[in-house]
Amino acid sequence: MNAHIISIGDEILIGQTVNTNASYIGNKLSDINIIVNKVTAIGDDETAILNEFNDSWNKYNLIIVTGGLGPTHDDITRSCVLKFFNTELVENEDVLSDIKSLIAKRGRTISNVIKGQALVPKIALPIRNQNGTAPGYWIEKDEKIFIVLPGVPYEMQGMIESFVLPKLIQLTIQQDFVIKKLILLTTGIGESILAERLGNLDEILQGAKLAFLPSQIGVKLRVTAQEEDEETAKNKLIEIEQKIRSKVGRYIFSREDEVLEIVVSRLLIERELRLAVAESCTGGYFSSLLTDISGSSKYYDRGVIAYSNAAKVENLKVDEDKINTFGAVSFEVARQMAEGVKSISGSDIGISLTGILGPTGGSAEKPVGLVYIGLCDDKVCTAKKFLFGDNRMRNKQRAAQAALEMLRRYLLGITFDE
Amino acid sequence: MNAHIISIGDEILIGQTVNTNASYIGNKLSDINIIVNKVTAIGDDETAILNEFNDSWNKYNLIIVTGGLGPTHDDITRSCVLKFFNTELVENEDVLSDIKSLIAKRGRTISNVIKGQALVPKIALPIRNQNGTAPGYWIEKDEKIFIVLPGVPYEMQGMIESFVLPKLIQLTIQQDFVIKKLILLTTGIGESILAERLGNLDEILQGAKLAFLPSQIGVKLRVTAQEEDEETAKNKLIEIEQKIRSKVGRYIFSREDEVLEIVVSRLLIERELRLAVAESCTGGYFSSLLTDISGSSKYYDRGVIAYSNAAKVENLKVDEDKINTFGAVSFEVARQMAEGVKSISGSDIGISLTGILGPTGGSAEKPVGLVYIGLCDDKVCTAKKFLFGDNRMRNKQRAAQAALEMLRRYLLGITFDE
Repeated sequence: MNAHIISIGDEILIGQTVNTNASYIGNKLSDINIIVNKVTAIGDDETAILNEFNDSWNKYNLIIVTGGLGPTHDDITRSCVLKFFNTELVENEDVLSDIKSLIAKRGRTISNVIKGQALVPKIALPIRNQNGTAPGYWIEKDEKIFIVLPGVPYEMQGMIESFVLPKLIQLTIQQDFVIKKLILLTTGIGESILAERLGNLDEILQGAKLAFLPSQIGVKLRVTAQEEDEETAKNKLIEIEQKIRSKVGRYIFSREDEVLEIVVSRLLIERELRLAVAESCTGGYFSSLLTDISGSSKYYDRGVIAYSNAAKVENLKVDEDKINTFGAVSFEVARQMAEGVKSISGSDIGISLTGILGPTGGSAEKPVGLVYIGLCDDKVCTAKKFLFGDNRMRNKQRAAQAALEMLRRYLLGITFDE
Repeated sequence: MNAHIISIGDEILIGQTVNTNASYIGNKLSDINIIVNKVTAIGDDETAILNEFNDSWNKYNLIIVTGGLGPTHDDITRSCVLKFFNTELVENEDVLSDIKSLIAKRGRTISNVIKGQALVPKIALPIRNQNGTAPGYWIEKDEKIFIVLPGVPYEMQGMIESFVLPKLIQLTIQQDFVIKKLILLTTGIGESILAERLGNLDEILQGAKLAFLPSQIGVKLRVTAQEEDEETAKNKLIEIEQKIRSKVGRYIFSREDEVLEIVVSRLLIERELRLAVAESCTGGYFSSLLTDISGSSKYYDRGVIAYSNAAKVENLKVDEDKINTFGAVSFEVARQMAEGVKSISGSDIGISLTGILGPTGGSAEKPVGLVYIGLCDDKVCTAKKFLFGDNRMRNKQRAAQAALEMLRRYLLGITFDE
């Protein structure tokens, strides 16, 4: 299948909305072996929309359109669909009853504007929306599939999951090749050093494709193998994974596409360990990552965001002397913060972050980007020094990621040699 | 100008990278009155790239390409540029010296792979990169501008700011109309109720365009006016803003495109008030937002993430009795948490969040989505009940946003009537 995603909305072009819808759909489709060939974003403009529909119809056989289905005047996707397919609106009973029950659930009364959302292009099978009032459309014509979905992410996502994917799987089960992918997530090592350590890629890949996807929190390796059958592709990826692991294994924290906090939370739960956190520079961000995960109360006990020095002394039992002698951003204070939060909470592990995230507050001796991360258990109490960059938000992410990686290595007994 | 952004990379199509580059560029260009007409994302595939270059060259006069300039084997944008413009590579002295000093700053030695990044298409003016080794290209031909930038966001951003925007401004100062936009950010009110309260839009807008941009943290109103000159456009927007404010003014927290935490931080600094935070359900997220802002130590004193009940009792002086009688998610406990964190810190304001974010942990009496937010100063100590949805991450965002809005209204003396 030849797939094209068309996202509609001035807010995307003008950069006020990031097109997460396209990446969500691209990801879900790749899971069922449909690789999106192109993503296009255009504005709320009838000519641009109709031109794009035409172009796309000539080149692709799966077209997914998102956005512009809402109840306000700037939403014109429905009328463009009517023109493009030369069809008319009909009221759909099921959609109307969905809308009525949704509005009732919200304790509101139904307005005529909202009732109008039950009008669906005659040519389309409506896609029901559990999370909003705009239905989607499934249109099949000339052996092509044309899908229209609302732009609100969780509404669109619900419809992709419950309707679009199952129906596409049915239609695509007969295919003469299989594409499988392998994701290996690394952290604490840069893209070019990774490439150097991997060495000869042809020898590793033998026809498969490898992409390096760097971000603030690490480099993702994505291997894609296209083979005649499931089994061959699977075996090929297993072999490739072994080769990659033999060279850079200890930097790989996951083979799924999951974030490091999930890996760490799993290790903490397995080992039945509870954690307490003392944050200064990251201001709660590290704790927030750790508690993003449902069930986090199993391993996360409490945190102290000791932003002021008074808070460090009063709530974490840091010696005022140490702060005066070494400064709040120091090896000594990081250690004491981790020790302090461990002791006030009675947790198994205390972890701390103190640093200068910038853009101001740096000095020659202690530049912006300097962060100490402390980690204490019943036996050891240590800290590690990091030097990140000069961007506050990136430093926050990198410091939290480094603390997570420090925890992962601690829990797995991997030593820090760099 | 007729502008097209082309983002290159399999990772975008497969949804492993969200195309934030396009939204960043779209936003920056709209600030200098260049409206992007289309954004396209395609894969690391020579045929697809060359086809897109061709198509784009026929339709647009400003083309900005991002991605695929890195040092690894899957980066093929440079070779596509060579083919498309039928040109060759030449080594650029300035770029080579940039690369050398960057590598030296990182304390590494230069490899041949990285040195190769100093080879630039002969037709192009190189765009120097302060944050990485890949230069960009500025190509002018047949009265069109073709710009190529690396895909790593902060590298691309630095080059847009320091080189691309200034050069585009020079080229576009003579234009026969002016587009100005007005952003009004609302929170605590849904899209359809907003639309209802605004009433007759034609009367308000008189030819200008209005877009409703809903998200988890509120609805953004964007008004765009196109007029013959700066002054007329400006006056029109002032008039429209007055009309909108007269109808929904108290839901508007900013007229710039800034997040609510910045508005709140400004109010706190102006009033010289210091804040302490007690978080349960949001796990540090609320504090993290408040400390995202440089200079936050002026108003943010400390926070306690009292995830466990023991932490609530030990660190926030919440009565164990109250937890047993009313539950940790209750009006009483929210109040006591806010009072407790205010008292231990000696801050002017204490604010607290306790709730059930889900997906598990709800009951008939206390469903997922229930959150209490407490707020205490020297005189009053109160809490407010909220019922959000069933998605953990969205609930976290919505709870933090509601707490920020509660602070904003408190600081401005706006009463809560709904």
